[in-house]
Amino acid sequence: MSENTPAAAGVDPEGVGPDIDQGVVDLLGVLAYGELSAFDRLSEDARSAPTMAGRAALSAMAAAEIGHYTKIDKFLAGHGVDIEDAMRPFIGHFDTWHASTAPRSWLESLVKAYVGDGLAADLYREMAGWLDDDSRALVLDVLADTGHSAFAEREVRSAIERDRAVRDRLTLWGRRLLGEALTQAQYVVAERDGLAELIVAGTGDLAGIAALFRRLQQQHGRRMTALGLG
Amino acid sequence: MSENTPAAAGVDPEGVGPDIDQGVVDLLGVLAYGELSAFDRLSEDARSAPTMAGRAALSAMAAAEIGHYTKIDKFLAGHGVDIEDAMRPFIGHFDTWHASTAPRSWLESLVKAYVGDGLAADLYREMAGWLDDDSRALVLDVLADTGHSAFAEREVRSAIERDRAVRDRLTLWGRRLLGEALTQAQYVVAERDGLAELIVAGTGDLAGIAALFRRLQQQHGRRMTALGLG
Repeated sequence: MSENTPAAAGVDPEGVGPDIDQGVVDLLGVLAYGELSAFDRLSEDARSAPTMAGRAALSAMAAAEIGHYTKIDKFLAGHGVDIEDAMRPFIGHFDTWHASTAPRSWLESLVKAYVGDGLAADLYREMAGWLDDDSRALVLDVLADTGHSAFAEREVRSAIERDRAVRDRLTLWGRRLLGEALTQAQYVVAERDGLAELIVAGTGDLAGIAALFRRLQQQHGRRMTALGLG
Repeated sequence: MSENTPAAAGVDPEGVGPDIDQGVVDLLGVLAYGELSAFDRLSEDARSAPTMAGRAALSAMAAAEIGHYTKIDKFLAGHGVDIEDAMRPFIGHFDTWHASTAPRSWLESLVKAYVGDGLAADLYREMAGWLDDDSRALVLDVLADTGHSAFAEREVRSAIERDRAVRDRLTLWGRRLLGEALTQAQYVVAERDGLAELIVAGTGDLAGIAALFRRLQQQHGRRMTALGLG
């Protein structure tokens, strides 16, 4: 059975059942848990900020993640899907990613926040083209609220201008963040048929998944360049 | 010199200088650091949630704190005051309060979140009557966004219905939270002349500060009763 049928997970209060594709539920589940776990890590990293401004900036990025999470939660509930069911398949992958990319310094925290924010925005942007009108409205709504990472950009740029060795280390760090993210993403797509079908249908091509990963890598590269890294 | 004159702290970009009373700056500084430190603690406590729903609910409470913080930051900046300068005198008091009231369980975290949210809302409500139109608009705006603690209420009520010993322990915990808060609040008012003058002027009475503390205690008592505690 194709998973690209109404979701098995979750039952709405009126007993009508989920009315969105399992692939869309998966994609929103990925984003929702990505946001909940990003909140967790950003709020922890905020604690190690060397300045009150840094602490407030990273806390604000964390808070924005919860804003997005809440929007996805409401949307899924409105379609008869429990967000916990939607997130469950992806918890292990995100937790593994975070464990393998625990920042060892404030600058590594900022680069990770910046990279994570950028990757999520890229994914939302890609998704917008694939979805029914209703889901697209949600994605565009969330996308309009991204871009809280100007502080990270400013701080990282100023730090690497002062120290070339810092730049080199953060360049390697940026590559590692993406590498580990793509590893987990490949596992996710391999495990979730509905998600794979959605991406193939969305990108209109059997090679669509590889093409999507390539685009994410290119956009990541451009972001690193914008930071002065890469 | 009375401190109830334009704030010495902070200089605005046009060199006009702060145009709000030091007492108002202090009050907003108290609320701002209260919110930033509440974010810090709530986001940490969210990590120990026994369920994903609990984790999301406490994370959302934390995120709301940052929303309020950001509003105060913008307001103060618009009046030529740096929020860091406004918060500085109160950091030690809040950090001491948090250190002396570190929750030892998930239910203690929830009661603390509920009590803190309620106390902040009470303070905002009290302030609304004392302020110039501009500052009042800020306070009412923030107040309209409080009330994220329905989850805490539900969870605590259900836990104490099942176990009377839990109820007794949480009742003592609630009293301790308020006691430690009032202790720190009294230090703050004793140290900050502008703040004391604002409260006296606002409550229209020399005994106004004691009356304010009494009202906060009464409202806290009502909240505890609503939780089934007290």
